[in-house]
Amino acid sequence: MLKNDLFLRALKGEPTERVPVWMMRQAGRYLPDYMKLKAKYDFFTRVQTPELAAEITLQPIDQVGVDAAIIFSDILVIPQAMGVEVLMEEGKGPHLPKVIANQKDIDALITTGAEQSLDYVYKALSLTKNQLGGRVPLIGFAGAPWTILCYMVEGKGSKTWEKAKQFAYTQTREAHSLLEKITNITIEYLKNQVKAGADAVQVFDSWAGSLSPEDFNTFSKPYLVRIAEELKGYAPVILFPKGSWYALEDLSKSGASALGVDWTVSPAMARQFTGNRITLQGNFDPAKLLSPIPEIEKAVNKMIDGFGTQRYIANLGHGITPNIPVEHAKAFVEAVKNYKAKN
Amino acid sequence: MLKNDLFLRALKGEPTERVPVWMMRQAGRYLPDYMKLKAKYDFFTRVQTPELAAEITLQPIDQVGVDAAIIFSDILVIPQAMGVEVLMEEGKGPHLPKVIANQKDIDALITTGAEQSLDYVYKALSLTKNQLGGRVPLIGFAGAPWTILCYMVEGKGSKTWEKAKQFAYTQTREAHSLLEKITNITIEYLKNQVKAGADAVQVFDSWAGSLSPEDFNTFSKPYLVRIAEELKGYAPVILFPKGSWYALEDLSKSGASALGVDWTVSPAMARQFTGNRITLQGNFDPAKLLSPIPEIEKAVNKMIDGFGTQRYIANLGHGITPNIPVEHAKAFVEAVKNYKAKN
Repeated sequence: MLKNDLFLRALKGEPTERVPVWMMRQAGRYLPDYMKLKAKYDFFTRVQTPELAAEITLQPIDQVGVDAAIIFSDILVIPQAMGVEVLMEEGKGPHLPKVIANQKDIDALITTGAEQSLDYVYKALSLTKNQLGGRVPLIGFAGAPWTILCYMVEGKGSKTWEKAKQFAYTQTREAHSLLEKITNITIEYLKNQVKAGADAVQVFDSWAGSLSPEDFNTFSKPYLVRIAEELKGYAPVILFPKGSWYALEDLSKSGASALGVDWTVSPAMARQFTGNRITLQGNFDPAKLLSPIPEIEKAVNKMIDGFGTQRYIANLGHGITPNIPVEHAKAFVEAVKNYKAKN
Repeated sequence: MLKNDLFLRALKGEPTERVPVWMMRQAGRYLPDYMKLKAKYDFFTRVQTPELAAEITLQPIDQVGVDAAIIFSDILVIPQAMGVEVLMEEGKGPHLPKVIANQKDIDALITTGAEQSLDYVYKALSLTKNQLGGRVPLIGFAGAPWTILCYMVEGKGSKTWEKAKQFAYTQTREAHSLLEKITNITIEYLKNQVKAGADAVQVFDSWAGSLSPEDFNTFSKPYLVRIAEELKGYAPVILFPKGSWYALEDLSKSGASALGVDWTVSPAMARQFTGNRITLQGNFDPAKLLSPIPEIEKAVNKMIDGFGTQRYIANLGHGITPNIPVEHAKAFVEAVKNYKAKN
């Protein structure tokens, strides 16, 4: 039994006595205790060792006071499960030496049962669930198919995702074949995460915003919608199409339980696009956590004034960055908890 | 007298018998003739030598067939004029070794008469104007104050502009002091460009999209509006707030003659936000120029269907990239010229 189910009630559209809050990348480099483990174990050791992943996942719960835990992992475990090598280079981000360039590369990917190789994630979830002891709900996650394709085709991070888009625009059939495969595995992966203890799952479409509305409708939306539909009966799904303000309206009718919103959409506009059909989550600019604490408090109050206190989960509009003082992260969480409606 | 004034008539809101077209960064690395000059002269030699800048500016006019020329230069000439060193590192982008960190740094900037050191730009404009012989209008340009601040504080390109935003959020008074100084010089710089021969000017707010709507209203909009107002009576102004779909409505009431639109806003939404109050320019995804030519043609037709043929200037949603085949750039331009409305 959960002692604090504010987050899940907000996801279900049920009334909440106060706004639940968590932060994307809350188990991460801004936390000194995380840095201690980072000094001892490399990235994929931390991800693949259930005891370490659980320990890291739990750190922000007591230290920052968030209303949900999110399993420490990475979206690129899916390409790994498909047989693609992923290197994590310190200070440089991910590197996939062998990129997908054609149908032959796609045919060579592991598909059937690929999600079974991610057993360490399920173990980490079960262990975390156990150690949480019902304090707060546990969130599982995956990358959106378009975002995973971006990395698999580009081989590393990019400002423009030109190669990924070139692949989509010139080898459209192949792109859909790859997106299909990623989607199938992601659905099984997320179902397994729920079976292992995740109370909800979030799908990160971090590079959705590289696409025009029309191309988003072609290369991203259908796969997000399929994931949301297939997860019904398993757990609530949060879709986060970063940079794609134009997708909010359509996705509010997708069967997902909530949508993530980034800071380029004002709370009022986000509600306008989604017509109060769905729970919204977001959208504090992480860079704004560098502001003096009284400014953070003011901005949090304004954000909640805009979204309203119901069908709303306070969060950042993107992951918290390593340069944020822990006291500022705490101030953000506290400001949400202390929010008093004006009327 | 201009032989082709389609672009200027569209800017003034006058009827045009066909849609005018040009491409951001049309004088650039995708053109083999540009690459020949690039092999011989370094970046700032090309920018600072009026004969070279004029030659580069003219290349796409005949070779690609665009309806406007844009002077070959760089937005970072403004920090240079203010006494800040700017290095252009091959394949790495701009580097400003000495960043702005506090009021003392701002006080040390050259302000009064800084625009006079940009005489080579005015000479390049006059020379180009002369060599154009009235074939097409000539566009001058500058970076938006927020975008210039980004580079001056960050020292180089960034995905998130975290340092620039930290500066704005924690040293707000200083940020406005810097924005004010950049704005003053930019106004004089643009006026001088018009006197030297520019028929219109564009202000590139390339990093507007890093800001929330509220922060855009604080740190970018007032300065863009001031530039638009001060240029009245000089030349039409195009404001391009890249990534800031949310700014289109307000900026359509700013006194600017046109707004640039990127590809994350559908033509229909762009018209909806701006209520047919203003000419729009954009918004083809440059990565889409990698598509097969028939696909480019289809997408161009769809784009013009969406914007309509009046109060509209066809363009990309961002600069053309070096990897675009010249034939594809030409196909884009030709598709605009050959557009036939469905009715």
